[in-house]
Amino acid sequence: MALLYLSTSARLPVWKTIFNEAGVTLIAGEDAVNDPLEVTAIACWTPPADLTRYPNLRVVLSVGAGVDHLPPMPQGVALARTLAPGIEAMVRDWVVMATLMLHRDMPKYLDQGRGGLWQGHPVRLASARRVGILGMGRIGGLVADSLSALGFDVAGLSRSGQGGAVPLFTAEQTGAFFARSDLLICLLPLTDATRGILGARTFAALPRGAGLIHAGRGAHLDMQALRAALEGGQLSAAMLDVTDPEPLPRDHWLWRDPRVIITPHVAAQTDATEGARHALAVVQALRSGAPLPGLVDQAKGY
Amino acid sequence: MALLYLSTSARLPVWKTIFNEAGVTLIAGEDAVNDPLEVTAIACWTPPADLTRYPNLRVVLSVGAGVDHLPPMPQGVALARTLAPGIEAMVRDWVVMATLMLHRDMPKYLDQGRGGLWQGHPVRLASARRVGILGMGRIGGLVADSLSALGFDVAGLSRSGQGGAVPLFTAEQTGAFFARSDLLICLLPLTDATRGILGARTFAALPRGAGLIHAGRGAHLDMQALRAALEGGQLSAAMLDVTDPEPLPRDHWLWRDPRVIITPHVAAQTDATEGARHALAVVQALRSGAPLPGLVDQAKGY
Ligand SMILES: NC(=O)c1ccc[n+]([C@@H]2O[C@H](COP(=O)([O-])OP(=O)(O)OC[C@H]3O[C@@H](n4cnc5c(N)ncnc54)[C@H](OP(=O)(O)O)[C@@H]3O)[C@@H](O)[C@H]2O)c1
Ligand SMILES: NC(=O)c1ccc[n+]([C@@H]2O[C@H](COP(=O)([O-])OP(=O)(O)OC[C@H]3O[C@@H](n4cnc5c(N)ncnc54)[C@H](OP(=O)(O)O)[C@@H]3O)[C@@H](O)[C@H]2O)c1
Repeated sequence: MALLYLSTSARLPVWKTIFNEAGVTLIAGEDAVNDPLEVTAIACWTPPADLTRYPNLRVVLSVGAGVDHLPPMPQGVALARTLAPGIEAMVRDWVVMATLMLHRDMPKYLDQGRGGLWQGHPVRLASARRVGILGMGRIGGLVADSLSALGFDVAGLSRSGQGGAVPLFTAEQTGAFFARSDLLICLLPLTDATRGILGARTFAALPRGAGLIHAGRGAHLDMQALRAALEGGQLSAAMLDVTDPEPLPRDHWLWRDPRVIITPHVAAQTDATEGARHALAVVQALRSGAPLPGLVDQAKGY
Repeated sequence: MALLYLSTSARLPVWKTIFNEAGVTLIAGEDAVNDPLEVTAIACWTPPADLTRYPNLRVVLSVGAGVDHLPPMPQGVALARTLAPGIEAMVRDWVVMATLMLHRDMPKYLDQGRGGLWQGHPVRLASARRVGILGMGRIGGLVADSLSALGFDVAGLSRSGQGGAVPLFTAEQTGAFFARSDLLICLLPLTDATRGILGARTFAALPRGAGLIHAGRGAHLDMQALRAALEGGQLSAAMLDVTDPEPLPRDHWLWRDPRVIITPHVAAQTDATEGARHALAVVQALRSGAPLPGLVDQAKGY
């Protein structure tokens, strides 16, 4: 029983230490595999093209929070994602920052600042702003708590209508949910059902002048629809940590639109220790037959 | 017994309604004063030059949160400031936003964005960042709660060493306080003791590369010292809602420094209803002999 490590070499020393201490074999890189039968788990961002080389493989673990970049698994191979309180807190912090930045007109003040213009605009209380969180999972729930504590009027949407301590809408109630979202936050996983969800129809369903905060995946977002919604005034501003494509090319219009603020997919980074501990927990669960932490429902895609 | 209203005409209708409903006389503007003996309270940003015109004057109420712009009061005239949960929450929101923006390298990402550069930098957990709050009064205490809830390692400093639910330093322990402030937040009132406190000595006492968040008053800040600290790398970035002077002239160097983000004194705006209600409470306390809400200690200056 061994874990095959196929991620960045920068994090490898930490993984080695943690696996050594636990007495679990870690193999770094496919070239180091002597006996393919030994490999029961693979930790990777992208898995090897040919998984049939490892007949005893039981789980592929994504070293990130999402699994949307992974191909379908062979029969009998489970898929897991890294659960790490650190990642979740980091994304929460980014989303709270981004929400406050749109709530408090930072795109406008940054644009004015470029021209040396000192000019105030009306300030609104957080309680006067309706926030809608698309995706009320581990991160969405944390965001809902923090924004509620600041006084925002928060609601969430999830497939099941479950999750978080705020009023919830189900995937069948998107109309009512969008209509009350002055600031729309996307924290969905990327699946067939959510690809392109941030598009013309969604934007049209928001209150006029709404703001968009996006920390999901680039492919949730229809960039042309975003441009049209900004041009037409349906959206007043957007703050994006993810774009389509990534990296965003240097000459892309998005960089030059003063209503849009971009960060280069840095809402979270996996801490090496947290990632390694989660991987170890997955291998130990495999051994003992316990439920795998971070197990993904491959039919749902998240 | 009447309140003389000397503030903006935009808010006047709300004040009139609230005073009418309570049956308390409100006089709008000095020209409307028929009997100066009637005036027991003045609500203003700047008071009339000659207060001796109103021999029965008992209190001057600042319509803002501070009183540092007011001249000394004649013997027997109390000074009060507007206490409004709305103002405090607005400043809190601005400070939380500004703290997250420095914590998450927004000045760097905004600067990169101007050149279309997609490049990430290491992300740190909030718990790895030590925040120091100068001034643990009504606003400082709220900020401490919110930043602690996000996981920041928060401490505060006040004259008395009292206030807030975080570790506190007194005005005699500034050295130890500054040495642990990776991000320094100023929420002090402006007094003789605090004027220029954000200067060379304070910056030198911070950890190298610290960030400054300033929502107090412009005169707390020594602008030349700020420039030197940024140039020398002692400060890595600053986010300012108040500057010296205000408004900041269009060609000021501060607008062009990518390490500095400026908002034009908009951390809070007094809501007309909240302001009028507080003024009414002050007049009613005068009548009944109760302690004046927002009473300022004129010896301390806040
Ligand atoms: N920018 C970054 O650096 C970064 C970092 C980490 C994560 N992320 C993104 O954040 C996403 C969310 O992470 P998480 O850990 O919070 O995920 P999670 O715990 O799996 O939660 C997913 C949430 O989305 C809901 N959902 C899924 N499909 C839906 C649909 N078709 N319609 C409505 N709701 C739907 C789920 O509803 P049910 O509970 O009802 O199924 C659940 O509430 C990740 O998938 C990733 O894309 C980004
Ligand atoms: N940018 C904006 O739009 C905006 C809006 C509102 C307010 N403000 C600013 O924010 C300031 C704070 O407001 P607040 O309502 O929180 O004030 P506050 O309740 O009066 O609190 C003042 C705090 O500062 C401390 N302090 C005073 N002098 C000090 C000194 N020399 N050394 C160390 N600590 C000292 C006090 O300590 P003790 O309790 O021990 O006396 C107290 O903790 C206002 O005065 C104003 O300048 C700015």
